Amino acid sequence: MQRIKLVIQYDGSDFVGWQRQKNGRTVQQEIECAINKITAEDVTVVGSSRTDAKVHALNQVVHFDTNSTIPANRFKIALNDILPDDVSVISSKKVSPNFHARFDVKKKSYEYYLSTEKQFCPLKRKYMTHIEKILDIDKMRKCAELFLGTHNFKGFCSAQAQVKNFERTIYTLKITQKKDVYRFSITGSGFLQHMVRIIVGTLVEVGYGKILQETVKSAIDNGDRKLAGRTMPPQGLYLKKIYF
Amino acid sequence: MQRIKLVIQYDGSDFVGWQRQKNGRTVQQEIECAINKITAEDVTVVGSSRTDAKVHALNQVVHFDTNSTIPANRFKIALNDILPDDVSVISSKKVSPNFHARFDVKKKSYEYYLSTEKQFCPLKRKYMTHIEKILDIDKMRKCAELFLGTHNFKGFCSAQAQVKNFERTIYTLKITQKKDVYRFSITGSGFLQHMVRIIVGTLVEVGYGKILQETVKSAIDNGDRKLAGRTMPPQGLYLKKIYF
Repeated sequence: MQRIKLVIQYDGSDFVGWQRQKNGRTVQQEIECAINKITAEDVTVVGSSRTDAKVHALNQVVHFDTNSTIPANRFKIALNDILPDDVSVISSKKVSPNFHARFDVKKKSYEYYLSTEKQFCPLKRKYMTHIEKILDIDKMRKCAELFLGTHNFKGFCSAQAQVKNFERTIYTLKITQKKDVYRFSITGSGFLQHMVRIIVGTLVEVGYGKILQETVKSAIDNGDRKLAGRTMPPQGLYLKKIYF
Repeated sequence: MQRIKLVIQYDGSDFVGWQRQKNGRTVQQEIECAINKITAEDVTVVGSSRTDAKVHALNQVVHFDTNSTIPANRFKIALNDILPDDVSVISSKKVSPNFHARFDVKKKSYEYYLSTEKQFCPLKRKYMTHIEKILDIDKMRKCAELFLGTHNFKGFCSAQAQVKNFERTIYTLKITQKKDVYRFSITGSGFLQHMVRIIVGTLVEVGYGKILQETVKSAIDNGDRKLAGRTMPPQGLYLKKIYF
């Protein structure tokens, strides 16, 4: 038996998400099927992040076990031959049987792209979210500092999230602007369901003056979802990097 | 009756092309249907360029006639409300009844994007073409000069093209490189079917040494399709601008 670690990229547009589901096309299923075609084994692939429908990944890490004697680095080429063109393997290598793509994660980085262009080009519609408001980047940056550190993020989490522990640590949260495009870069110990999208949605509403910074502080302190902003659409979200 | 000129953008990925066809989704049909929802008229929309399946447009110009008294500039907003999210109207205005989106065209510009990245990201697959060869940009630039001016482009045209006159004028043909991405920018009096894609395909094969510049000269002089390079895939092609 060997444990293989893959780093993969995908365009999330035509997936209902990472995780195998009864209905809908998932990245996990595509990879498991492709491995099955190579090794004839029914493997379960474990991913570092369960990205949602339409969320992209530039650097998702996964592992699986195989009894195949195919050299680990050959899986990259073999899988890329089989996988559909919206999923790609960047690297494949043998790792210790103790390595775990989910449990061993130390930090994760996500990026969110937002356009405030007057004329939003349809070519960008799956890769960034468009809003028509004018944003005050200084206000957003100041408010972003509130999220740094360890907090109970119950107020910034989908009601559907099946977890007991809402405590997560945010290490960095940076907002950069290039013409009409804003990039939110966030690194944390881990993220609850929809957490990045709700944090960005909250900062955006702060940026156009709908939510005050004091309210955001209350949302963090009291874990009150109603005080936080809206959940941004998935289209602008990218899983950027997994740190072990 | 008023004649309306629209400037539109679209993501060509999910279209079988501009022109209305029996089978398959076309941009022309989407626009005609949207106009019908607004005016209840069956209009025919004339486009400047009949872009192929999967080819994108940043600046397609179209015209149509309507008996509706809706102010011309309102069509932009009304159409964008109805159109699917892969087509967008940039502007709408009233023009002279003599204006013709196809016959009045003086020049057209197209761009073609090509990536030679080792690791091609699946997020780019619909928006540029990937090749794994190393290209000699100096060779390509030198050869590009052969295309400038007025020539019979029969050798650089699809066999299916239904035209009698193969004479076209190329005004500019520039190749620029940013890291591993090459951009081919071409402006001409007009283009035959697949002409831009065959010219780029020919230059690419010159760039990796498969075709000699002398052969390209013969292909132009003799109108021999077999001497020219392959037709590049549509994914990297953008209709950039129409000049009247």
